[in-house]
Amino acid sequence: MASAMTCSAADLLPHLGNSANATAAAEFICGRFTAVSEYLSNTTYAVDSTYLLFSAYLVFAMQLGFAMLCAGSVRAKNTMNIMLTNVLDAAAGGLSYYLFGFAFAFGAPSNGFIGKHFFGLKEFPSQSFDYSYFLYQWAFAIAAAGITSGSIAERTQFVAYLIYSSFLTGFVYPIVSHWFWSADGWASASKTDGNLLFGSGVIDFAGSGVVHMVGGIAGLWGAFIEGPRIGRFDRIGRSVTLRGHSASLVVLGTFLLWFGWYGFNPGSFIIILKSYGDSTKGTYYGQWSAIGRTAVTTTLAGCTAALTTLFGKRLLVGHWNVVDVCNGLLGGFAAITSGCAVVEPWAAIVCGFIAAWVLIGFNKLATKLKYDDPLEAAQLHGGCGSWGIIFTGLFAKKEYVNEVYPGFPNRPYGLFMGGGGKLLGSQIIQILVIIGWVSVTMGPLFFLLHKFKLLRISREDETAGMDLTRHGGFAYIYHDEDEGSSMPGFKITKIEPTNTPTPDHHHSRSVAV
Amino acid sequence: MASAMTCSAADLLPHLGNSANATAAAEFICGRFTAVSEYLSNTTYAVDSTYLLFSAYLVFAMQLGFAMLCAGSVRAKNTMNIMLTNVLDAAAGGLSYYLFGFAFAFGAPSNGFIGKHFFGLKEFPSQSFDYSYFLYQWAFAIAAAGITSGSIAERTQFVAYLIYSSFLTGFVYPIVSHWFWSADGWASASKTDGNLLFGSGVIDFAGSGVVHMVGGIAGLWGAFIEGPRIGRFDRIGRSVTLRGHSASLVVLGTFLLWFGWYGFNPGSFIIILKSYGDSTKGTYYGQWSAIGRTAVTTTLAGCTAALTTLFGKRLLVGHWNVVDVCNGLLGGFAAITSGCAVVEPWAAIVCGFIAAWVLIGFNKLATKLKYDDPLEAAQLHGGCGSWGIIFTGLFAKKEYVNEVYPGFPNRPYGLFMGGGGKLLGSQIIQILVIIGWVSVTMGPLFFLLHKFKLLRISREDETAGMDLTRHGGFAYIYHDEDEGSSMPGFKITKIEPTNTPTPDHHHSRSVAV
Amino acid sequence: MASAMTCSAADLLPHLGNSANATAAAEFICGRFTAVSEYLSNTTYAVDSTYLLFSAYLVFAMQLGFAMLCAGSVRAKNTMNIMLTNVLDAAAGGLSYYLFGFAFAFGAPSNGFIGKHFFGLKEFPSQSFDYSYFLYQWAFAIAAAGITSGSIAERTQFVAYLIYSSFLTGFVYPIVSHWFWSADGWASASKTDGNLLFGSGVIDFAGSGVVHMVGGIAGLWGAFIEGPRIGRFDRIGRSVTLRGHSASLVVLGTFLLWFGWYGFNPGSFIIILKSYGDSTKGTYYGQWSAIGRTAVTTTLAGCTAALTTLFGKRLLVGHWNVVDVCNGLLGGFAAITSGCAVVEPWAAIVCGFIAAWVLIGFNKLATKLKYDDPLEAAQLHGGCGSWGIIFTGLFAKKEYVNEVYPGFPNRPYGLFMGGGGKLLGSQIIQILVIIGWVSVTMGPLFFLLHKFKLLRISREDETAGMDLTRHGGFAYIYHDEDEGSSMPGFKITKIEPTNTPTPDHHHSRSVAV
Repeated sequence: MASAMTCSAADLLPHLGNSANATAAAEFICGRFTAVSEYLSNTTYAVDSTYLLFSAYLVFAMQLGFAMLCAGSVRAKNTMNIMLTNVLDAAAGGLSYYLFGFAFAFGAPSNGFIGKHFFGLKEFPSQSFDYSYFLYQWAFAIAAAGITSGSIAERTQFVAYLIYSSFLTGFVYPIVSHWFWSADGWASASKTDGNLLFGSGVIDFAGSGVVHMVGGIAGLWGAFIEGPRIGRFDRIGRSVTLRGHSASLVVLGTFLLWFGWYGFNPGSFIIILKSYGDSTKGTYYGQWSAIGRTAVTTTLAGCTAALTTLFGKRLLVGHWNVVDVCNGLLGGFAAITSGCAVVEPWAAIVCGFIAAWVLIGFNKLATKLKYDDPLEAAQLHGGCGSWGIIFTGLFAKKEYVNEVYPGFPNRPYGLFMGGGGKLLGSQIIQILVIIGWVSVTMGPLFFLLHKFKLLRISREDETAGMDLTRHGGFAYIYHDEDEGSSMPGFKITKIEPTNTPTPDHHHSRSVAV
Repeated sequence: MASAMTCSAADLLPHLGNSANATAAAEFICGRFTAVSEYLSNTTYAVDSTYLLFSAYLVFAMQLGFAMLCAGSVRAKNTMNIMLTNVLDAAAGGLSYYLFGFAFAFGAPSNGFIGKHFFGLKEFPSQSFDYSYFLYQWAFAIAAAGITSGSIAERTQFVAYLIYSSFLTGFVYPIVSHWFWSADGWASASKTDGNLLFGSGVIDFAGSGVVHMVGGIAGLWGAFIEGPRIGRFDRIGRSVTLRGHSASLVVLGTFLLWFGWYGFNPGSFIIILKSYGDSTKGTYYGQWSAIGRTAVTTTLAGCTAALTTLFGKRLLVGHWNVVDVCNGLLGGFAAITSGCAVVEPWAAIVCGFIAAWVLIGFNKLATKLKYDDPLEAAQLHGGCGSWGIIFTGLFAKKEYVNEVYPGFPNRPYGLFMGGGGKLLGSQIIQILVIIGWVSVTMGPLFFLLHKFKLLRISREDETAGMDLTRHGGFAYIYHDEDEGSSMPGFKITKIEPTNTPTPDHHHSRSVAV
Repeated sequence: MASAMTCSAADLLPHLGNSANATAAAEFICGRFTAVSEYLSNTTYAVDSTYLLFSAYLVFAMQLGFAMLCAGSVRAKNTMNIMLTNVLDAAAGGLSYYLFGFAFAFGAPSNGFIGKHFFGLKEFPSQSFDYSYFLYQWAFAIAAAGITSGSIAERTQFVAYLIYSSFLTGFVYPIVSHWFWSADGWASASKTDGNLLFGSGVIDFAGSGVVHMVGGIAGLWGAFIEGPRIGRFDRIGRSVTLRGHSASLVVLGTFLLWFGWYGFNPGSFIIILKSYGDSTKGTYYGQWSAIGRTAVTTTLAGCTAALTTLFGKRLLVGHWNVVDVCNGLLGGFAAITSGCAVVEPWAAIVCGFIAAWVLIGFNKLATKLKYDDPLEAAQLHGGCGSWGIIFTGLFAKKEYVNEVYPGFPNRPYGLFMGGGGKLLGSQIIQILVIIGWVSVTMGPLFFLLHKFKLLRISREDETAGMDLTRHGGFAYIYHDEDEGSSMPGFKITKIEPTNTPTPDHHHSRSVAV
């Protein structure tokens, strides 16, 4: 609490010296100030916890957004498969992040590389961390794995999924978040020992690098090692679009991600009740304003990227394509996530505009290289995420950087804002380090899975669809037997899964012939 | 902050006059009170910002609700089209509201007609407005355009959509919100100069008029000028229901709108930490209670309208129809939005009951007049919105009106509550003025688009569906080639869009023959 | 407010006795403390109301979750029917809970059996209850009815639904919540007269019993009296899985329920700004921490149950089944709901692990007994709910029990935690009493409906699907006439409902022949 409110009777006593009962008076008055101070302390915890908890719930809602986006972007025959992986990201991530993920990420005091306290939430809560903070970080961890699952969709064995997902959420991702976000991290912008990288540290406020690039680069390696889906490139190498089965689910997922991003970016402030002190602005200006501004920069970057994609693709392809616009929007969000808290709203528009072209460019490149990523996840989260990290190094504003990362006067800020190149240098280091770390961990993992024939499904399974062969049936049954029999001109072909292991009959999708 | 907490050492000093160190004592004590007061000020900003931000997120979620409601209510062949318009409402609205919309609406000091500050969020934040307030108002602005898109669905050129949407969100709507909601607006109920219309001003608390009627009347003109969809009325003029393609999406959208309305109506209080002072009720009663009551009136109006529609349509049509019930529910919400903060819960039930019949009546009238509105948007938002404005003039309660719009003792309130006819008069003025303003702006715009052949799509496009001809393909692909070939009794007809501008092959919806 | 802040001039005066203007000084100082104290009181109301309102909105979102889960779990031909029941749960529940449900549940002062104040929110708000509390409890009430609707899906007359739903929400459920949650309830763990059942009272923090068992047992009686759906068991009694029509909707619903559960469980603290006083932990520890911990235990129980179900069903059935995993997840949530606030995170993992097997076991039993419950609602909410109640009696931790249910030192806690068997005894009483009460109320109701032929639909309706015969048509229309005619190799059979009661033509689902 603000020490200005602290009232010590010993301090007040001399000033009341001549009165008859000065000691009692001082104790009386100071006792009340102490009670007020304690009550304000409690209020602060309650307000900040409310803010953080509901932000965490919003970030969790992004998992639903990913599930719907993925489901809509794959073919109907693999819908159950991809949705199951999304549910499991959240579930398996919950256990692994509780057992050791959080400890690796934030277990202070530790070293610059890895945390080592709070395994299984031992010694929780503490002065530094409450349960709400754990919940918030867990919701971030599962987002990273969700990104990767998009890249390798429609052709990956379920067991491979279980293995890489646990490894990513429980180890690879927590290490990265330790480096850039924990008070001990070697590249953190708010390192408590003050020994900042390039005198600056990396500003990756909500995780364009920590979350999006990690998920995207992991996906890149998975998709690269597996190779493209059958039919994605025809015999003479031309690209064949394998369209997802439901644009409605894509739009639903995109809007849910947008909704959840308001927990992701503004929520990354963690606390909202914080004054910025002797700001040149009035007392109305504090962290609550910076949080609102972050929501605005996030919105503007996404909106600009969506519009840029709309007109860009209209010129390039000739269609007004809603799925492309959704991906463009998400690319804008992935890009602004790094700098959202430290840039002006007008800069967010620049960020989104370029993010759209970055995504279009990487998609062109992917097609040229015959790289197949059903969700464009590597291009979107890896590509736009990288751009966002550089963007922060260019456009971070002095005033905002000092408010959001206080305690280090004269720290570097954005190159284009007159803050020199040291922040940009740190940002480039981040990109290189994340690419390196994810490549040396996830690359070999996917390669080993590939070598042991645990990565890719069989040609037969891929053609028939994993839902039918591995998940007990098709995700949708719009016509069924009873119904059909009551209708004229409607005949049914009942399709039984070839090796049903239970006596239960499955009413499979029936087909008009 | 409450001035009662202000502690000036100069004031305290005389009272401590005889003590040895009176000056120091007074400064000591008052210094602590000042610190407490500042901390409470910060706390207030944090609490109110938390409340407003999460309310804004909920209102944003309504855009997803609109998207799903619209998608489900149109035929499958136009799903991509309508969803794209909903995504673009939010995206284009984000930029235009940032650049000038907010300035037109709230740019004080200004005149009664239009605001003129804060273009591009210049001079933001200020004592009056923080970023969270901008975000909240942006979410309202895009809702208005979303309503209109429903009326003209399934037959409008995409370019027409882009034009009217920008004009509505960036100019027509902000002007209306300036009139009724800004401190300078000529018809505002909380006008700072105290010169209220009819000594009352218009009470449109969360926007039955400002948002719903504006969207609905704009839609009315669009749909009227375009004329009905092909097949909506048969050769001898009978009405043919063109049912939407997915009731599940309709229900999803409706529930999301319900969810978001808790941000729309209770959120319109903007601040929650406000005492109602020497209320006859206890200290437990304050703006937080009025906010809760607003959530309750909103809920009850919607629930009553839903039940009334259920039984009403059962009697009239013979079916228990979920889509009609959803529309009835939304009609109840649109109606209560004006008076939600100033009426008793029992009155909200009256509001919802009549709203259901208003909607049924306007739908009958629309059929009779061969007016075709795929979402019933003009009837629902325009019709029920108008009823809601009148309802407020009849049922607004004295006590609540004075609490929610303070500073003007003896102001008029609801006619049926003994408050005279002046509020009702103001409300009727609002209805007439909105109809007039939207008609003279949007009417000519739609007419010009019509004249320049930019409004309605071609007969061929309408029959084939816009998704196929303009948006790159059908929204859903439940069966695909690979799958088909692995199944007995299943042949595929591959349908290529006639003029695919890229070498990519599109796996179009395949059909069993 | 904390009385330590109260400042009475009469108390301070003697201490300032010798000063010239002691009275004025004391009044001056105490006046400021009084103002601070009042401001803090207002702040507390605002913070707690914000917390409770947004929690209520989340719980309301569960109704959307139920609607989507139910829709996806039934066959396409009954989708409109089940969704309509979910919309009506919320709507009819809104009115009945306003008129008398809340009064029965919380109308204090009353007796141990039933409340008797606040009918129609009379005398609202009061020192005890504000509108936000009503809204929160309403959202709980409609959840109970939503559970039951799952059990009797696909074969129940709509009128039967209207009758049981009103009776459950308006009477059966409120009584149960009065017993266990109101300050007067005979089995409440925080009974104000201190006369606790077994010196302990029942700990059903967020309602594994009050909500989930009530809904589940009601569903059990309904489904038992109706008997299984046609085709659910074949001629020689083997189980035939009647799969739901959309796994995407099931996953959507499950994630929405998960999202909403963060309002349901942590929200049940009602207030967040509460210190735990002289805790052995630091001042950073208070009800806000307990709320965060509750969110974590809820998460871990669900995650563990989902993973257990995944591997368990893989071993038992051979598929990785997403729908089963979703149900397992929800079973974990239903189980932890009772003890979420008073157990350690590690114990929540135990809770979830066993919940998964409880659900698998009850599902096996249901199949053996030829009990058909399309949503597994009785097994899941009744079975896992019961387990959760027992779990609390075993694992409730002394420290947490005393913090969450204060004022009764030395109260019993979990048997395995060294707290004796009295809490467990109370919990078992709860299970028996709920089974008894719901059976003697809902059992006869369903039986009477059955006797008067109001319960089950006709064989013809069931075969054709209720959407076609009772709700005006099929929920989905993916192909329509205009579209078909523009495509090669695509012929249409138009299916007219046999007895259309209006002149409107319905474009029914058209079929390729």
